[in-house]
Amino acid sequence: MGEREEVKLLGTWYSPVVARAKIALRLKSVDYDYFEEDLFGSKSELLLKSNPVHKKVPVLIHNNKPILESLNIVEYIDETWNASGPSILPSHPHDRSQARFWSAFVDDKWFPTLIATTITKSENAKAKGMEEVGEGLLLLEDAFISISKGERFFGGEVIGFMDICLGSFLVILKAREKLKGENILDKSKTPSLCKWANQFLADHTVKNVVPEIDRVVKFMREFEAETQTRA
Amino acid sequence: MGEREEVKLLGTWYSPVVARAKIALRLKSVDYDYFEEDLFGSKSELLLKSNPVHKKVPVLIHNNKPILESLNIVEYIDETWNASGPSILPSHPHDRSQARFWSAFVDDKWFPTLIATTITKSENAKAKGMEEVGEGLLLLEDAFISISKGERFFGGEVIGFMDICLGSFLVILKAREKLKGENILDKSKTPSLCKWANQFLADHTVKNVVPEIDRVVKFMREFEAETQTRA
Repeated sequence: MGEREEVKLLGTWYSPVVARAKIALRLKSVDYDYFEEDLFGSKSELLLKSNPVHKKVPVLIHNNKPILESLNIVEYIDETWNASGPSILPSHPHDRSQARFWSAFVDDKWFPTLIATTITKSENAKAKGMEEVGEGLLLLEDAFISISKGERFFGGEVIGFMDICLGSFLVILKAREKLKGENILDKSKTPSLCKWANQFLADHTVKNVVPEIDRVVKFMREFEAETQTRA
Repeated sequence: MGEREEVKLLGTWYSPVVARAKIALRLKSVDYDYFEEDLFGSKSELLLKSNPVHKKVPVLIHNNKPILESLNIVEYIDETWNASGPSILPSHPHDRSQARFWSAFVDDKWFPTLIATTITKSENAKAKGMEEVGEGLLLLEDAFISISKGERFFGGEVIGFMDICLGSFLVILKAREKLKGENILDKSKTPSLCKWANQFLADHTVKNVVPEIDRVVKFMREFEAETQTRA
């Protein structure tokens, strides 16, 4: 009998980037112990020790060694449990480079722009930001059509790297649409991406792994009320 | 006789991130055609067509397919010419995740902070930024000691992913030290990193691939004069 591997995940239930690690672990059928962090209260000793540079979640701890940054964790899971479950990154170098390119677009440009529209108090800046978010979705629609080649996901018939990257933000997107009556993912503009989003959220590796939209709506409402009281 | 592979690199001579692609191609002994872009004048049709989203260099074009983003290009080169030359990323998943983590730290945090100190007109902001740059170098000194385990590079006895990532900025760092009389890489504070920097710049895969420091000093001086005239 082999020794049981230590796999720990430090996260918060509402974090989309923590959901990335959870989905990847689920795709690879890896058992793990989950530790909920309180980022508004005090962070755990384990988090501070494991991620002294950024002190952020997610942190994956595998046999005592921490792995940091969500997409880095997803790649680590893919490489470590490579014999188990589907490959998360595509196998051909060019397809891999496309998955990494679009993931960087989502993380460095598209999502930060969306978040900035929530934070800004200027109506002008918000309108300009939402226009950029919409333009980004058009680019992602084209990328999806080109990469998926008629299959269900960016990764083909199963969820892959870029699905996890963009898909992890869908719950926040849907929660925000519900909270503010917005229509960010618009069926008339990005039909393929809308279909992909529904398929992603309904997939058995995602459905019970990401938080419920209504719970996130409630969390966002409380968070907004809290920050407005403080401001 | 096989068909000659098409490998094109679009870049600018002074760009540190373009140097990353050049060093990786050199490590793998890949022949390529280089195209100098004029980012201050008009960008080439090939650049606009290959990178319509960001319109930035470097772009690697391999058999008609563009690969974008410098570290993504380095990974692509490592994976595509995997049988040629040393492996650029380490082979163990945990070592790979460390290389990716510290590279993200350099690209997303450390280098942008250094650049911000050049741009800001506030002496306070500049001093605070330079303090953060120094703290970042202390973290990188510790990371180097832990990762290199007494060998010459982050990658061991040969240059690897993290060497290319951080090392590509050394010419700009040295040029700035020369131009402003600063001492950013301080032997008394980060002795291992200073030794690493000299070894990196003297390595045969780097020496004639990165631009000469004096040429970059001249370029920076002209660029500063130009922007001050316009301001």
